[in-house]
Amino acid sequence: MYDLIIIGGGPAGITAGIYAVRHKLEALMITKGFGGQMARKAVAIENYPGFENISGADLVEKFVGQLKKHDIEIIKDSVKRVKKKGEQFEVETSQEGKYQSKTVLVATGADPRPLEVPGEKEFIGKGVSYCTTCDAPLFAQKTVVVVGGGNAGFEAAIAIQKHAKKVYILEFASQIKADESNQKKAKETGKIEVITSAALKKIEGDNFVQSITYQDRKSNGEKKLSVEGVFVEIGNVPATGFVKELVEFNQKDEIKIDPKNNQTKTPGLYAAGDVTEVEHKQIVIACGEATKAVLSIYDHLEKGK
Amino acid sequence: MYDLIIIGGGPAGITAGIYAVRHKLEALMITKGFGGQMARKAVAIENYPGFENISGADLVEKFVGQLKKHDIEIIKDSVKRVKKKGEQFEVETSQEGKYQSKTVLVATGADPRPLEVPGEKEFIGKGVSYCTTCDAPLFAQKTVVVVGGGNAGFEAAIAIQKHAKKVYILEFASQIKADESNQKKAKETGKIEVITSAALKKIEGDNFVQSITYQDRKSNGEKKLSVEGVFVEIGNVPATGFVKELVEFNQKDEIKIDPKNNQTKTPGLYAAGDVTEVEHKQIVIACGEATKAVLSIYDHLEKGK
Repeated sequence: MYDLIIIGGGPAGITAGIYAVRHKLEALMITKGFGGQMARKAVAIENYPGFENISGADLVEKFVGQLKKHDIEIIKDSVKRVKKKGEQFEVETSQEGKYQSKTVLVATGADPRPLEVPGEKEFIGKGVSYCTTCDAPLFAQKTVVVVGGGNAGFEAAIAIQKHAKKVYILEFASQIKADESNQKKAKETGKIEVITSAALKKIEGDNFVQSITYQDRKSNGEKKLSVEGVFVEIGNVPATGFVKELVEFNQKDEIKIDPKNNQTKTPGLYAAGDVTEVEHKQIVIACGEATKAVLSIYDHLEKGK
Repeated sequence: MYDLIIIGGGPAGITAGIYAVRHKLEALMITKGFGGQMARKAVAIENYPGFENISGADLVEKFVGQLKKHDIEIIKDSVKRVKKKGEQFEVETSQEGKYQSKTVLVATGADPRPLEVPGEKEFIGKGVSYCTTCDAPLFAQKTVVVVGGGNAGFEAAIAIQKHAKKVYILEFASQIKADESNQKKAKETGKIEVITSAALKKIEGDNFVQSITYQDRKSNGEKKLSVEGVFVEIGNVPATGFVKELVEFNQKDEIKIDPKNNQTKTPGLYAAGDVTEVEHKQIVIACGEATKAVLSIYDHLEKGK
């Protein structure tokens, strides 16, 4: 019987692990790998306090080194299901393991929904970005495209044009779904051009992105656009399937939490970081939220004694 | 007219500054100095994700270096008063400066209330600690005293005894004010001894704390206690006087915020970190909260355009 099972090994999960062990909780971490989205960032991180400029991989290494210094039990596996059994939880993994715990912290993050077109994977960190807040300053005076014409896409484009020379927004549908206010703001910049009815076909380049090709769904002809950056804003996919009976979701399929202590609707079940409805997804926010969650879990366990 | 005035230069204020400049906000930071409580920590920090073990001073240096790389305007001064003028704010500093801004972020932190006895200042980081969560693991197998018999003191003692050999709780009053449940838990550990009617007189040692002397308020005699650590848990003093007409406070004089976006009761006025009612005070929580605040401020300013 563990005090706490942490599911996920990204910034939130690792931070939770560090705090759990330092608070002498009997903790188990179950994760497929370490770093989450941070591990997949090939561009430098410049907004995590303490590091002026560090690669995602290097920051993951520092996090994991710090975690392992604290001698936490870690199982490399994915979680199939979390069940509530009386006052406790049973966590079942893909490899048929079953683990019992008094509390559970879900920190499995959310993956940006991928474009699934040729060139996307090849140019991640070489022009393809899934994080405007992180990467917009890297495209100063460049021409980029934002894929996705929802509010997220428009907000990304408005933020990026403060740095970039020119920003295209590429939308699959014939109508823009973003709010009027976002559309108005985008227009006022004079630097954002919206292309509707456009189905992205491929991303091309040499060492770095040089162009995209899309199908004009009105004429059915293929068109090429010279861009140095591709920002993907077609939504996120929170990793929550294994816990869906025990939590509530918002419209983005993110886990609803009490923002004061990160508890879900099920007492003893907590969530932190990008898997939750926390509005802005940033490494340092995930770390702070995970810390709030573990210290609340500690209080919860102390109260139950 | 600034977009944002950040008041305070601790972890929350510095993080806010980094995010504000990266989001192209016209930002001004007003602070007496840098680092806040972090700067005063003479013991190593082991729970800020990314650094296994770093001195407070070194971490402050990294934070400040990163901030200044972003070329933010900084005024070294303290704030006398924040006034709301129509939709905007006027921030008045001690040196008679007046600055106008669309939004304000209060990140002035909270200082642990000091003991004000001889030896206290001398032994900070050499046995005297104001942060149980940070420093308890450093006192493994040692004998320590917690000054303060409220809930905070008892909770500190319960946490510390997991590491320490023996923990005294020193309370000035004749009656213990902590909850029954905390008193019961402390008793059950078998390692915590409560001393009431005790007025701390001095802290003594060589390179490190070796003993305290207190006055037994019943017999009026002086008593000496051999301890290697002194944890101060007599409350905090949030730095909020300059903004008291614009915010609401909880019972600890901490600023009440909407935990989703860190806004106070006054639209456009935000607060983050130890100055707020956020339950647990940790560097990484302050950083995460400040990031949430600035990204919410950015959204607030965009909506107002």
